[in-house]
Amino acid sequence: MDKRNDSSDPLVLFMPSGKRGRFPKGTAILDAARELGVYVESVCGGRGICGRCQCEIQTGQFAKHGITSAAENISPPGPKEIRYAEKRELKEGRRLSCSAYVEGDLVVDIPQDLQINAQIVRKADDGRHIDRNPAIQLCYVEVEEPDMHKPLGDLDRLKAALEKDWGWNDLMVDSHLLPNIQKILRDGEWKVTAAIHRDMNSSRPSLIALYPGLHNEAYGIACDIGSTTIALHLVSLLSGSTIASTGTPNPQIRFGEDLMSRVSYVMMNPDGREGMTTAVRNAINGMIENACTEAGINPTDILDLVFVGNPIMHHLFLGIDPTELGGAPFALAVSGAVHSWASDLDVHVNKGARVYMLPCIAGHVGADAAAVTLCEGPHRQKKQMLVVDVGTNAEIVLGNKDHIVAASSPTGPAFEGAEISCGQRAAPGAIERVRIDPETLEPRVRVIGCDKWSDEEGFAEGTAKTGVTGVCGSAIIEVIAEMYLTGIISEDGVVDGALAAKSDRIVADGRTFSYTLWRGEPELTIKQTDVRAIQLAKAALYAGIRLLMDKKGIDHVDSISFAGAFGTFIDPKYAMVLGLIPDCDLDNVKAVGNAAGYGAKMALLNRTYRREIEETVRRIEKIETALEPDFQQHFVNAMAMPNKVDPFPKLAKAVKLPERKALDPSGADAGGRRRRRNRG
Amino acid sequence: MDKRNDSSDPLVLFMPSGKRGRFPKGTAILDAARELGVYVESVCGGRGICGRCQCEIQTGQFAKHGITSAAENISPPGPKEIRYAEKRELKEGRRLSCSAYVEGDLVVDIPQDLQINAQIVRKADDGRHIDRNPAIQLCYVEVEEPDMHKPLGDLDRLKAALEKDWGWNDLMVDSHLLPNIQKILRDGEWKVTAAIHRDMNSSRPSLIALYPGLHNEAYGIACDIGSTTIALHLVSLLSGSTIASTGTPNPQIRFGEDLMSRVSYVMMNPDGREGMTTAVRNAINGMIENACTEAGINPTDILDLVFVGNPIMHHLFLGIDPTELGGAPFALAVSGAVHSWASDLDVHVNKGARVYMLPCIAGHVGADAAAVTLCEGPHRQKKQMLVVDVGTNAEIVLGNKDHIVAASSPTGPAFEGAEISCGQRAAPGAIERVRIDPETLEPRVRVIGCDKWSDEEGFAEGTAKTGVTGVCGSAIIEVIAEMYLTGIISEDGVVDGALAAKSDRIVADGRTFSYTLWRGEPELTIKQTDVRAIQLAKAALYAGIRLLMDKKGIDHVDSISFAGAFGTFIDPKYAMVLGLIPDCDLDNVKAVGNAAGYGAKMALLNRTYRREIEETVRRIEKIETALEPDFQQHFVNAMAMPNKVDPFPKLAKAVKLPERKALDPSGADAGGRRRRRNRG
Repeated sequence: MDKRNDSSDPLVLFMPSGKRGRFPKGTAILDAARELGVYVESVCGGRGICGRCQCEIQTGQFAKHGITSAAENISPPGPKEIRYAEKRELKEGRRLSCSAYVEGDLVVDIPQDLQINAQIVRKADDGRHIDRNPAIQLCYVEVEEPDMHKPLGDLDRLKAALEKDWGWNDLMVDSHLLPNIQKILRDGEWKVTAAIHRDMNSSRPSLIALYPGLHNEAYGIACDIGSTTIALHLVSLLSGSTIASTGTPNPQIRFGEDLMSRVSYVMMNPDGREGMTTAVRNAINGMIENACTEAGINPTDILDLVFVGNPIMHHLFLGIDPTELGGAPFALAVSGAVHSWASDLDVHVNKGARVYMLPCIAGHVGADAAAVTLCEGPHRQKKQMLVVDVGTNAEIVLGNKDHIVAASSPTGPAFEGAEISCGQRAAPGAIERVRIDPETLEPRVRVIGCDKWSDEEGFAEGTAKTGVTGVCGSAIIEVIAEMYLTGIISEDGVVDGALAAKSDRIVADGRTFSYTLWRGEPELTIKQTDVRAIQLAKAALYAGIRLLMDKKGIDHVDSISFAGAFGTFIDPKYAMVLGLIPDCDLDNVKAVGNAAGYGAKMALLNRTYRREIEETVRRIEKIETALEPDFQQHFVNAMAMPNKVDPFPKLAKAVKLPERKALDPSGADAGGRRRRRNRG
Repeated sequence: MDKRNDSSDPLVLFMPSGKRGRFPKGTAILDAARELGVYVESVCGGRGICGRCQCEIQTGQFAKHGITSAAENISPPGPKEIRYAEKRELKEGRRLSCSAYVEGDLVVDIPQDLQINAQIVRKADDGRHIDRNPAIQLCYVEVEEPDMHKPLGDLDRLKAALEKDWGWNDLMVDSHLLPNIQKILRDGEWKVTAAIHRDMNSSRPSLIALYPGLHNEAYGIACDIGSTTIALHLVSLLSGSTIASTGTPNPQIRFGEDLMSRVSYVMMNPDGREGMTTAVRNAINGMIENACTEAGINPTDILDLVFVGNPIMHHLFLGIDPTELGGAPFALAVSGAVHSWASDLDVHVNKGARVYMLPCIAGHVGADAAAVTLCEGPHRQKKQMLVVDVGTNAEIVLGNKDHIVAASSPTGPAFEGAEISCGQRAAPGAIERVRIDPETLEPRVRVIGCDKWSDEEGFAEGTAKTGVTGVCGSAIIEVIAEMYLTGIISEDGVVDGALAAKSDRIVADGRTFSYTLWRGEPELTIKQTDVRAIQLAKAALYAGIRLLMDKKGIDHVDSISFAGAFGTFIDPKYAMVLGLIPDCDLDNVKAVGNAAGYGAKMALLNRTYRREIEETVRRIEKIETALEPDFQQHFVNAMAMPNKVDPFPKLAKAVKLPERKALDPSGADAGGRRRRRNRG
């Protein structure tokens, strides 16, 4: 600090972080960055051979920052840089920050996602940037050769070099390395790259892998084990870029479609748990193999893996019997973050690779919800954020940096199209968008695989191959919302038989009526029971959210994030029209895709995110909906559309809602509070 | 400290440690002990159910300590003790220190080697006591049951209980436990005993095993992997007692008798290393199984294991190719202490059991020599101690707490009888003691398996079964020493042919003469070549010792410890007459048996000994005899008997040595120093 504070020293500003400080002339850019806590990779420790520490000098006047950066304010390229540029190519304008020295005021740009290995084509970037501070560090060292006068072992001299050059003091050493150390040292002619893992809080950093010579890449895996789909990303730990992404159906589906049927399978079959554990691990191994082949890398270069999943997926992956999660009190075997070895979990990557699993929030709110939370960051902001991940259960997280509550709500599979007569999975031929004309009650639809609406030219040709086969989850929300908006169903969800006079799409169906959405083979009809199924599901979701709002004592949310596949395709407007979610400015409702996978990637690339989510999960207040007396009343109130208590003023600005008779501004919500007071 | 310093508080003196302090009335003896650093075991954490914290109150006046201890100075037995005594039996006079409280001045005896489990009979005690502070601690806890309102995982609640009751903060957890935690907690009805391992210096303590209910035993293994014999002890970590000891020939012998032939085998055979690693691990597994069967315990109760061995045995056990140890610069793969998992080394005990291997000193001076050093403790005393472990190589450690030097000297196998014409292994029928009459030159001998001398009545009957078959290593030393003392050989080792006139046992043998030690079938003769072989071996040993004495600048040693089987049977007087070892008061020369195994046991029972030997080995100055120009001169000087330079004044007091012509008081030793000065 003393040196930096000398106001006559040159000022160095790092971008994009904006961190700045004064450094004496002659300070290496790398040292300046480190002193300021700017993360700059370096595998070779400043020898000018790895090229990981590249930077760019921005020249010009930066009035906003009060700094003028000039080309002559940096030392000219020295021998190390010239040699590197000759051997490995250094892009125009790039410098090695280990070999470029401060000569005057500078603005230094640290390029993100720096790609060193030309053969690797980055395929799967998602545009967002994650600050890096991975649990793995590669450290190139030159080790003293054996000497009979100082008979330290080869490993001991390696450790001495790692201490001298990199400051690693008293490293632990993975025992699988012991048989290989001598050969690696000799193959590398006493020059080796050590992979150090340093994550487990206060534990000693560990030497987990060793490569001969300079080894300039290390990879990690971020994986979201969903009950339906497993999504996996192969990520460079040194550049932060995702170099392959892959998804596959969870093979456990053959043991049971939904979570509870898988738990039942374990309970009924003596080797059921083992079978499911093996199935998911095999699938993950296959995905890793494919991702590595695609990216052209060796699986032994994978050194760190982060997994997330709901509690049952989490337990089965770890080899834990999930039976306890099948009934009250829904006891997790472990809720905190899990540190393990990939080899202990039969995952075929480097022998020393480590596994990190994010903490679970509660028996029904898993590490996937924790990852979504980490990604969306309600705990990083003042505003009240609602995060919803809809599957067979909806996982709900609500709050801000002061207080977060979480719960799971039993929505059932209707949102996924499972209990809907014409429902189907999202696939070519499935209806994905629906509009109903308020006057004629005629629908128009769009179908997956064709970009025309059904009333546009080219639709017939576009759907000739696939046909129109069913209605996918997101379109079910739309069609029922449109039916409500056009008066086909009442706010109580009853199909209005009187409209049969106005449109022949309203058809008697026993004692109720149905709406013919699509005339063809097959004919697709929305039945009264379909409407009821969606009402039950949305009431469960809304009641869960409302319960959390009660717990926090708030009556509105500032933003809503829809995570997962369901959220990706749903139109927030229709979700709100149906009352799945509370009133909110529509601009602040967004689909965030596979936020669980993204959260896993954050934890992979930056171990401070691990501590952040562990700390956050400890602070989250967990609500078990089954134990909450108000849940039932919220549920009943939420059966109506949008529901009985909310005026939805923000929604009403964007959408002309039908006149509502059920609205009860005094609210069962207030009633709930009254009851609580009476009990208290 | 503040409370203890109140001089009106009762004084409590603990025996046998002698630690003392003042404590307020009402202090539990257990708490007083802990505050003073007196190691008292407690598995149940003061619940009065494990019985591990037993103590005895000594009553009477202890004038030397200025304390009068009376029976009424301790609280009467409370309900916990009464219940324990009813259920489990508490010996007369014994108290549970968790439930006995200070009422006045007390002398408290903490019984050593306390045996709780009556079914275990202690069989293999060696009488010495090792202060205990093992790496394993058993901690009984009662865990909160799952609660939907606080959905912490079962493991997380277990960790919370371990933190609350035992202060274990942020424990690491072995991942093999995860699949079993829920069942163990439920089997134990939320009462469990956790095994905590806390050894790896600054790393976090780890939960490595978990048992339902109160689990009141934990065991360890101390094992010395010798190239000829493997010795293994099964030790209670809670009482410190050895409950089974077993030894077996090292099965690697089939790959090569001595170390270098085993290294050659590895070099010549592609799967040679693997074969030898498997052989030694299988042998160890068999020994553990036998020891457990003998002691009636379950191998899953073995939680910690300490191994020692020479560098080649050490490497082969760890699965490391020892080829580098076969030639200069004799590079160890690892010289520091090794921490590993038993399961990683295919040792079949508890899945979470840890392995500790003592550090190696140098390429020829292994973890066995470190264990001998730990046992004998030159680093714990002011006097200069010489420790010698004689095998194919002699490992030599010399020094005191200020400075220790170590080396290996290539004695060859003569001391083991291998290059001696009539030599054989120590077995019934082998001559083990020899005396020669100085007048008649007639020998008398004793034979293994018979307690009579050959000139005593009953010898013929006693040896009828075995016959007299050869001369074992220790007797070879004796016969050659006796030949020297009686003038049969000169100080230069030449058999004096002139004596053929005096005794028909001196017989011409080509151009030299031999001495007929035993007339029978076979006839046992000491040939001139046998004398030469012993001279070479003893000169190598002495030269190594002398080199270390030079390094330390000392010309005498205060004590000599002979470790290993050779040392156990050799008579120190004859060893000194032959000049294997330097002059020393004979009372201070002792055989210390399997000191390597004992050192391993010390490291098993007390992890502070691990730090002690690691620290000591780091400080030891390693001398490579092959690199020392003086070694050759010392070797040449030491060919004579006892040797050319030492006057052996102390030996001369005990033994009438022949008049010596070779004695050269100026000494080649001084010559060596002169040469060094010239070079420097």
